[in-house]
Amino acid sequence: MRSIYMDHVGTNPLHPEVLEEMLPFLKDNFANPLSLYEPAVKAKEAIENARERTALLINAKPNEIIFTSSGAESNNFAVKGIALAGQKKGKHIITSRIEHHSITNTGRFLEKSGFAVTYLPVDKNGLIDPADVQKAITDETVLISIIHASPEIGTIEPIAEIAKIARAKKVIIHTDAVVTAGNIPVDVRSLDVDLLTLSAHQFYGPKGAAALYLKEGTRIIPLIYGGIQEGGRRAGTENVPAIVGMGKAAELARKEMDARINYLKPLRESMISDTLKNIKKVTLTGHPEQRLPGHASFVVEFIEGEAMLLLLAGKGIYCASGSACTSRALKSSPVLASIGVPDHIAQGSVVFSIGQGTTEDDINYFNKTFPEVINRLREMSPFTDGWEGLEDTPCTVKK
Amino acid sequence: MRSIYMDHVGTNPLHPEVLEEMLPFLKDNFANPLSLYEPAVKAKEAIENARERTALLINAKPNEIIFTSSGAESNNFAVKGIALAGQKKGKHIITSRIEHHSITNTGRFLEKSGFAVTYLPVDKNGLIDPADVQKAITDETVLISIIHASPEIGTIEPIAEIAKIARAKKVIIHTDAVVTAGNIPVDVRSLDVDLLTLSAHQFYGPKGAAALYLKEGTRIIPLIYGGIQEGGRRAGTENVPAIVGMGKAAELARKEMDARINYLKPLRESMISDTLKNIKKVTLTGHPEQRLPGHASFVVEFIEGEAMLLLLAGKGIYCASGSACTSRALKSSPVLASIGVPDHIAQGSVVFSIGQGTTEDDINYFNKTFPEVINRLREMSPFTDGWEGLEDTPCTVKK
Repeated sequence: MRSIYMDHVGTNPLHPEVLEEMLPFLKDNFANPLSLYEPAVKAKEAIENARERTALLINAKPNEIIFTSSGAESNNFAVKGIALAGQKKGKHIITSRIEHHSITNTGRFLEKSGFAVTYLPVDKNGLIDPADVQKAITDETVLISIIHASPEIGTIEPIAEIAKIARAKKVIIHTDAVVTAGNIPVDVRSLDVDLLTLSAHQFYGPKGAAALYLKEGTRIIPLIYGGIQEGGRRAGTENVPAIVGMGKAAELARKEMDARINYLKPLRESMISDTLKNIKKVTLTGHPEQRLPGHASFVVEFIEGEAMLLLLAGKGIYCASGSACTSRALKSSPVLASIGVPDHIAQGSVVFSIGQGTTEDDINYFNKTFPEVINRLREMSPFTDGWEGLEDTPCTVKK
Repeated sequence: MRSIYMDHVGTNPLHPEVLEEMLPFLKDNFANPLSLYEPAVKAKEAIENARERTALLINAKPNEIIFTSSGAESNNFAVKGIALAGQKKGKHIITSRIEHHSITNTGRFLEKSGFAVTYLPVDKNGLIDPADVQKAITDETVLISIIHASPEIGTIEPIAEIAKIARAKKVIIHTDAVVTAGNIPVDVRSLDVDLLTLSAHQFYGPKGAAALYLKEGTRIIPLIYGGIQEGGRRAGTENVPAIVGMGKAAELARKEMDARINYLKPLRESMISDTLKNIKKVTLTGHPEQRLPGHASFVVEFIEGEAMLLLLAGKGIYCASGSACTSRALKSSPVLASIGVPDHIAQGSVVFSIGQGTTEDDINYFNKTFPEVINRLREMSPFTDGWEGLEDTPCTVKK
């Protein structure tokens, strides 16, 4: 059977060239980079080389890259590390309602520790209004953390504008760029952020390697104490093969970025326009233009998301409902709630995210199959009899 | 040139069968285990299989294993997570002077956060006296964290005895078993600990995979918040290949454990007896019997550790001075200080740790080469002229 992977915001395959660079460090050179003998020195050099490549991807300096094990770790590190370092100045943090759980749940933790956290709203397209950031800042604010783009609805946030406000108020700003870095241009100097999270498996690198960009001179409290790895800012024996893979993936992403984006956009446009044309009661979620190049997300009314995912998987189309992290959580999505989708409609959420392995043929198959699956589900649904009558239900995405 | 790897407490090569099991997850099955389609379900099953194998290695239940990215992460998670969960009861922690930096530096961090931390002394062999633990416990004590064995001096601590005291006083006990789990029998039931740290690359598994054993019913505050991975206790996209590798390495370690230990012990004994016989002014550090099977550590007087390491490396012998994490730190070792080695002698610290790839021939070469290297260094040293006179210097390891 055909199988079409449309869950690239969930994770990505390793680029074969990335695996190729990792293998020597999974085989012959297994040395601990902290040691002093020849293979260890080579492992250390390989890490520094990966650091340079990763820095180049986001226009940072190598010493501004701290390797971690995941985007979640980088996000926890950033938010807790800056909150703890700044708590003498104040105990207020600003974030949004469309952050990844690794930010919002860290926010809840800090609230229990005496911090106040503002969760900014977004508009119906998922955009944060920089004016809201401006209004939320107080003398106590020590950190603003806003996601660069949402994996659930694909909307790309105006981080540079928000950072300008943060800078003027001398508040440190972090952005979770997990789904953008390596996929669209991300430049820490033009964004002018102090911290930025990126994750290798989001751009055809390995799982287990991620990074936190930390602007030179920014004070942070470590999340993981121990040895002198990463300049004492993140301890633990380095996962050398994964870090090497991240470096290679970063290099490839940088060189191929324009071509990759140009490849994805028309395919995604075809998915969106065909879906909106051929399926009734379907709404695109997130911003229609200002969105991730390979990202098409919808809510389909009167459909239950899990059934839809399973039936699509039965047809060989692998996709997600909400973010990958929420597919199994079986909770309604706070991101969809934040853009005004009512709970019962949010049940019909589906996220398709395509990548470099997606072919035109795959898209044609998708454009044919998705409406078939929805029709089949609606035939089976308890609403079948009354379906026509329900057509007049007012569109449920609030304007 | 010959190269002999004698830094197995630093890290280990991947067992070829481990890499074999990892490869499918580095290639075809790259799915995010949180997703719902077939390859994701298989990835999830592979993780649960690895969890069972890892649990079996230490006689735990699968739901008591939380996968992390490193021993350092597990140690930070354990100590901060229990301290935060228990802080309403009290703010006192007991640990020792021979812990890994990931414990002691976490202790320093908690001290800054209002906790009191007792760092227990050890005897000249590096053993903690359980009576000292008993005496240190107060009504405020919420955690005892003692290393199972020191990578620097090889001494295995009486964790079961210490745990008995902790249990009687209803204090939670954690042990850092990074260098023991997978290398000597480690049974969480007979040790009767509540938490235990283990790390895959210490038993021929991959870097980037480690675990925290958390006894069923023990409350902990997460270190990394986010999605529902690891039952909500440790977020972040699972490093599937590394976790799968950890499971396989755990299975191999469990099956081959006796054979591995029986292989190492006589080789190590030969190293120790030959060294003590053939080199003047050398002292074995750590316990002479109650020590890691492949571990031989010394201090050589009037020798500078880094020069010794470099000259040994020049002869193809790769070893460490202190723990791997301190080789590059260029600080004097608190572990050696704790067993009474004065600073100027601690400079001459060297740790040899052998593994399953070490041959008898390697040991013969070592036994011949180590004295040659020391002689060469002493010939070059400024002490050369007065060397004979210095022989009467009293032995510097305090009794």
